[in-house]
Amino acid sequence: MEAATGDRALVAAMLAAELALTRAWAALGLAPAGAVAAVEAAASGYDAGDLAGRARAAGNPVIPLAADLRAAAGEWAHRGATSQDILDTALMLTSSRALGLMLADLDRAAASLAGLAAGHRDTPMAARTLTQHAVPTTFGLKAAGWRALVLDARDRLHAVRQALPAQLGGAAGTLAAFHAFATRPEDVRTPHPSATPPENVRAPRPSATPPEDLGLPHALPTPPEDVGVRMAEVFAAEVGLAVPELPWHVLRTPIGDLAGALAFTAGALGKVAADVLVLSRTEIGEVGEGAAGGSSAMPHKANPVRAVWIAAAARQVPALAAVLYGAMAAEDERPAGAWHAEWQTLRDALRLTGGATRDAAELAAGLRVHPDRMHANLALTGGMVVSERLAAELGHDLARSVAADPEALAALLAGRPELKDLLDPAGYLGSAGTLVDRALRRTPPEEGP
Amino acid sequence: MEAATGDRALVAAMLAAELALTRAWAALGLAPAGAVAAVEAAASGYDAGDLAGRARAAGNPVIPLAADLRAAAGEWAHRGATSQDILDTALMLTSSRALGLMLADLDRAAASLAGLAAGHRDTPMAARTLTQHAVPTTFGLKAAGWRALVLDARDRLHAVRQALPAQLGGAAGTLAAFHAFATRPEDVRTPHPSATPPENVRAPRPSATPPEDLGLPHALPTPPEDVGVRMAEVFAAEVGLAVPELPWHVLRTPIGDLAGALAFTAGALGKVAADVLVLSRTEIGEVGEGAAGGSSAMPHKANPVRAVWIAAAARQVPALAAVLYGAMAAEDERPAGAWHAEWQTLRDALRLTGGATRDAAELAAGLRVHPDRMHANLALTGGMVVSERLAAELGHDLARSVAADPEALAALLAGRPELKDLLDPAGYLGSAGTLVDRALRRTPPEEGP
Amino acid sequence: MEAATGDRALVAAMLAAELALTRAWAALGLAPAGAVAAVEAAASGYDAGDLAGRARAAGNPVIPLAADLRAAAGEWAHRGATSQDILDTALMLTSSRALGLMLADLDRAAASLAGLAAGHRDTPMAARTLTQHAVPTTFGLKAAGWRALVLDARDRLHAVRQALPAQLGGAAGTLAAFHAFATRPEDVRTPHPSATPPENVRAPRPSATPPEDLGLPHALPTPPEDVGVRMAEVFAAEVGLAVPELPWHVLRTPIGDLAGALAFTAGALGKVAADVLVLSRTEIGEVGEGAAGGSSAMPHKANPVRAVWIAAAARQVPALAAVLYGAMAAEDERPAGAWHAEWQTLRDALRLTGGATRDAAELAAGLRVHPDRMHANLALTGGMVVSERLAAELGHDLARSVAADPEALAALLAGRPELKDLLDPAGYLGSAGTLVDRALRRTPPEEGP
Amino acid sequence: MEAATGDRALVAAMLAAELALTRAWAALGLAPAGAVAAVEAAASGYDAGDLAGRARAAGNPVIPLAADLRAAAGEWAHRGATSQDILDTALMLTSSRALGLMLADLDRAAASLAGLAAGHRDTPMAARTLTQHAVPTTFGLKAAGWRALVLDARDRLHAVRQALPAQLGGAAGTLAAFHAFATRPEDVRTPHPSATPPENVRAPRPSATPPEDLGLPHALPTPPEDVGVRMAEVFAAEVGLAVPELPWHVLRTPIGDLAGALAFTAGALGKVAADVLVLSRTEIGEVGEGAAGGSSAMPHKANPVRAVWIAAAARQVPALAAVLYGAMAAEDERPAGAWHAEWQTLRDALRLTGGATRDAAELAAGLRVHPDRMHANLALTGGMVVSERLAAELGHDLARSVAADPEALAALLAGRPELKDLLDPAGYLGSAGTLVDRALRRTPPEEGP
Repeated sequence: MEAATGDRALVAAMLAAELALTRAWAALGLAPAGAVAAVEAAASGYDAGDLAGRARAAGNPVIPLAADLRAAAGEWAHRGATSQDILDTALMLTSSRALGLMLADLDRAAASLAGLAAGHRDTPMAARTLTQHAVPTTFGLKAAGWRALVLDARDRLHAVRQALPAQLGGAAGTLAAFHAFATRPEDVRTPHPSATPPENVRAPRPSATPPEDLGLPHALPTPPEDVGVRMAEVFAAEVGLAVPELPWHVLRTPIGDLAGALAFTAGALGKVAADVLVLSRTEIGEVGEGAAGGSSAMPHKANPVRAVWIAAAARQVPALAAVLYGAMAAEDERPAGAWHAEWQTLRDALRLTGGATRDAAELAAGLRVHPDRMHANLALTGGMVVSERLAAELGHDLARSVAADPEALAALLAGRPELKDLLDPAGYLGSAGTLVDRALRRTPPEEGP
Repeated sequence: MEAATGDRALVAAMLAAELALTRAWAALGLAPAGAVAAVEAAASGYDAGDLAGRARAAGNPVIPLAADLRAAAGEWAHRGATSQDILDTALMLTSSRALGLMLADLDRAAASLAGLAAGHRDTPMAARTLTQHAVPTTFGLKAAGWRALVLDARDRLHAVRQALPAQLGGAAGTLAAFHAFATRPEDVRTPHPSATPPENVRAPRPSATPPEDLGLPHALPTPPEDVGVRMAEVFAAEVGLAVPELPWHVLRTPIGDLAGALAFTAGALGKVAADVLVLSRTEIGEVGEGAAGGSSAMPHKANPVRAVWIAAAARQVPALAAVLYGAMAAEDERPAGAWHAEWQTLRDALRLTGGATRDAAELAAGLRVHPDRMHANLALTGGMVVSERLAAELGHDLARSVAADPEALAALLAGRPELKDLLDPAGYLGSAGTLVDRALRRTPPEEGP
Repeated sequence: MEAATGDRALVAAMLAAELALTRAWAALGLAPAGAVAAVEAAASGYDAGDLAGRARAAGNPVIPLAADLRAAAGEWAHRGATSQDILDTALMLTSSRALGLMLADLDRAAASLAGLAAGHRDTPMAARTLTQHAVPTTFGLKAAGWRALVLDARDRLHAVRQALPAQLGGAAGTLAAFHAFATRPEDVRTPHPSATPPENVRAPRPSATPPEDLGLPHALPTPPEDVGVRMAEVFAAEVGLAVPELPWHVLRTPIGDLAGALAFTAGALGKVAADVLVLSRTEIGEVGEGAAGGSSAMPHKANPVRAVWIAAAARQVPALAAVLYGAMAAEDERPAGAWHAEWQTLRDALRLTGGATRDAAELAAGLRVHPDRMHANLALTGGMVVSERLAAELGHDLARSVAADPEALAALLAGRPELKDLLDPAGYLGSAGTLVDRALRRTPPEEGP
Repeated sequence: MEAATGDRALVAAMLAAELALTRAWAALGLAPAGAVAAVEAAASGYDAGDLAGRARAAGNPVIPLAADLRAAAGEWAHRGATSQDILDTALMLTSSRALGLMLADLDRAAASLAGLAAGHRDTPMAARTLTQHAVPTTFGLKAAGWRALVLDARDRLHAVRQALPAQLGGAAGTLAAFHAFATRPEDVRTPHPSATPPENVRAPRPSATPPEDLGLPHALPTPPEDVGVRMAEVFAAEVGLAVPELPWHVLRTPIGDLAGALAFTAGALGKVAADVLVLSRTEIGEVGEGAAGGSSAMPHKANPVRAVWIAAAARQVPALAAVLYGAMAAEDERPAGAWHAEWQTLRDALRLTGGATRDAAELAAGLRVHPDRMHANLALTGGMVVSERLAAELGHDLARSVAADPEALAALLAGRPELKDLLDPAGYLGSAGTLVDRALRRTPPEEGP
């Protein structure tokens, strides 16, 4: 996940976006033959150096990066784009990759949890409400619930990932620069500001072969009806992202959707972790992580490390999502601060959620379940874990009196031995098995991420 | 919105849920004839009185409310349910109603914005980035973008609303109490703890007519295969909410989804408000709210009140959503605090977002647009708003030098008068018109909320 | 707390601020004799009616409230003030009262916790880290830590409360209207817009008695050197709040400080609640709330209700504080949304934190401690709770081997019986007693809230 | 700031804490002569390598780091400490350094703002409320308000920094391990698990010279009364942090205080940035950043880059503070997730706030003020910016009528030319000058950070 969302990955994604831009110009037959190769060369050997420091002064990292590319590859680099086009597209590429990893993790987790749910469909354990034993449940039902949340998270991440759009709008979302550069008569003769214009480098345009390598459905019209819109479409195809309805510099639907899906996922996995942390407690001991963390001081300790990391992520991602939702209120055609608040926030949310999905996959795969401890714990209340059933059978008043007084219960049972069965937790599981069966019939979508 | 989400509305929704529960028992032929009428009577005259105070001591408002109903209507009230069943269902009913109002507001807003986008498809104005004039755009494109966000919010709210589930799980989500009560031989003879059991009130069961008024597809099986699961289905039908895959006491998918859709909506409308606030500034004056708020001290002021309220909501709802996402990490079968943190938070989020949708509808309907001010403002930079175009035509270096020096620009134009057209903002709108046309082709789903 | 922060309390506080304003005019000898009485009469019988609805249209509740007062009491009501002067002052009055209640609660809680810490100074219990038994500690040290947090919260709330300022700046913080009204020659002749100006009602000004009832140090200069600044001082004295360095319409130091102190308090009490919830678990049972909440379905349950409420507050208040901190970034002389986002957020934060302090006071007063369960739980790891000590004595390798193998430990002890004492948890408490003694020497400030 | 809070800085701080620990042992005469040198050597050449990856598996970065040190320097490394002792201390060292940089920045900013406030004490400009011109104010008053916020932030950061404590509690806050190691008879003879015990290395203890190089007030008692408490004191002196009242593994007062002070600072600077962004708008143009950022596409643009960065930080830090406040609710003696959620969150909050203070210092130092634009803008409402004054002079009704109708105003003035002076904004500044003077009398504390 670090490799997918780190600084190096982001720079690589920005370079990929820049390269796709030049390729899109070429695909429309509007760039000279050597432009793509020049940008490729500049990008492949790019040294980010002190990009962060220069980004601080410039306002964002694309401004110095684009300047570097232009210095190396000439004016066909970054042509017509605004820096937000490149950075937004790079963030979407980064998000897409990170979400892909998360989806695979969640699939693994769901598979492990399905096994736990099926294997423990009828394993009784105490259901706990407000920290107290309530009535019996089964570990299978608990695991099936975990899996349901994992699949819910998967569905939401998958839907968001499918819709992640490329960004291309130019300086203010009108795509005007693409018109300007496309129609400028001199452009093909001045591919580089410092060079003597070569003769008619765009001569081959009429016979430009359609950009078949893009997987585009058919040859491009020449000239395109609206070159700006066409550029946006081809650019999206080049980077492998969706074509947005409109440039979304300040229509932050993709960011809001990412925020929600990531916070949902962190919250959903946080539920699993919260349960594992409770059930791992020394006094409870009903589950244990397969390969738990050690302690720097206490040799006997086996810490539920993965659940801890997940729980920590579940505390952080919702706040990051709040920042991202707040940044949707972005004034003007490009905002003064709202956009800038997204960059690190989104990447942190991806990194934390991606860490949580990996931990969840490993946790689910290695979880050790202890039915004996579940059985022993169910007995701790002397049968009171089925007090609800007693209330159903005996009425609330009598149930309440025996619940408060074990001796009264014993006396009652002595007189009505047929009631003893009522005290068996395994006999008061209601629809648990049916619910597990039903939940396990839900399958994740076949298509991979 | 206050009427839909206030305390009174929540109590009414809890009573509706309690009544639906008794009706579900009756629909399955498991409750005596008078049970429904008794609960109806108790609910219709219910006096909430000091419910809040008693809720504090009990841990939630359903405990005292259910006690009141039982005192009035006997044990068929609240039968088998846990308090969370009732409160969660009531919150979903409340949410459903509130979201319905929001969807209607957003439809109105979208319609008004479509009119603005079409009417100002070609009205040039300055695009502003990082507070500075950048290049020209059109007010139509801006309005089309607002509408796109409104429709995005509408889609998300609509999807969440369709999926809002009823809650019925019993004490710990196993539905066990429904089995206990359904199979207890004495139950029909002891419909009320204080009453002498009437003779065989359940006698008519075999001939019980199917609950046709529920709109259920066919007669219920007698006996039901899994009475717990059956109760959950019939209960959901009674309250008009979706049947959940599993009891969701601690699988908080609906809460997470509501959080996301509400924060998204507040953020989306926050964008509209942010723009209106900028464009309403005294110095800019490009738009104005139709009926703006006054001032207690300054007679001349016309405050953009609706945009202010929306902006305030956009600052609050994301944080509330963070609380709700954080509450997804709910331990055990019912958590000690996470659930309790949701009640007021969710209702505040509904109220604030609902206020914002109403304000947005009114704002969009009444917005005054001033093309003359847009025109005048476009001239403020002496043509520099098209410096990007100059750069495309003249190269960056020359454009930069004339951009910094109006006299140099004048000299250049004197020598090359054909360049003057380049300085017309209305001639540098790129794909703005095409984008507006495309965005307006998107229509909201036909079905109403 | 509801009484201190509810809508009715806020309206009363706004009326108190309005009345103080007129009194300040009178105290400076700038208002006619009957002005105070007229506003008093208007305020005492004020019917808030549909203030909320009118506030929505106007932009804030003071605009309609001031209009009502003016209609009833004439132009000396709300004279010179802006609506934010009144609402900010009212919010500070509300905050001051709420913080007073919280401080008293925290004092009670600290006293109870001091008793628990002293009484259980040497009661061993398992220290738990990452959910696992680690080494022994004492309940006294735990209670002393809770108390330290309570006192820390008390200190922060107390400091903030002392500094809560009145707000008086006029329309934009320059206090200009106070100059305008103070110097207007006609003003004393037109005390009411609809009245015939009485003759020279301001005649008694030169002999105006100093406003001794305000507790002001000495007679006011006549004329005041800067009537605006003087009004702000007298107004603050009238409402019993601090005099701010500057009008703080957009210098939101008091709001930021309140946000921090409230979030700190909620977090500090959240720590106490988190511990109580763990220690109350059925399997652990080391503490119990004195009068715990019941269950609507399970007669045997005793829920730790107060800890639950506190835990819920600790989840919500930090997010509300984030909204308030975010609202500090308020543009202009009065902002379009940031201020409006504070009102309900601050009151919710006060209400939730105030609820938590009350619950904490009751929880601490009634907490039942079970040393027998602490003793029993300490034995659960078969002595491994002192593995750290074994590691110190035997080296890590040997300690690790016996920690993993109870039989190896038994064999070791058989050969070296003197090591048995090492396994006594009560003998491995380190500085716990010293720390409790030291912590209990900290006393809260003598002065009450 | 990156250098103060980055990964490398944190590792260095952890090594400093480990070294201080061994030094504290030596200062108490409880460590062999070579222990400090051995740990120094191990620390000085430490290669963090894949510490992050190992930290993930272990649960925190100190566990692998301590293992590395022990492998290199023997058992006197990390002796008696728990990993949280080291990491918390390292985070406080990091925070102290970062806060020091921030305080210096804020001092610079305050000095520049004092110059602006004094220099523009009487420069009229439009006060804006809810985006609309309200009444006149001065730029001096605005700058004085900015400075007041900067000084408020400075005070809060300074107070928090003074109190930042060292952390030393051992495995669970009882300091028991320090007792165990201090009293173990063999310890001085086995300074390294693999070494042959040297003869009596602790012999010189009785004559141990007091640790004068620590600046401790007097010679240590021999033997110390409570070696655990004594170690905590000496350790704090070694690292240069405060001695806490209690080990604070789960008493997170320092974290809560940092959260509040950082969010306050970000919010306070956010106010400055919000104003600069408004006043920099193309249409307003009243201020400009001295050296503003460029654009990748538009040569004419001069973006207010520093204000943008500050505004972005002001959107993020409050949410991070909410995470930190939420993490105060940490269960047990060390929590499962709450602590882990603090590490990156705190460092991000430091980094963002530190970036904002630096930007604020530069912004204040270089701000260009344009009184001519302020003058011109004041005229935009045709005198209506003093409508409040007109209302004071003419009554609300008349003022309202002329405010709505410029011709009516002209007619009025024609008849009463003496009223013309009333329309001069420079004559309606109220107490602005007095307030500036008073605010500038506040001086920051003399002592440097």
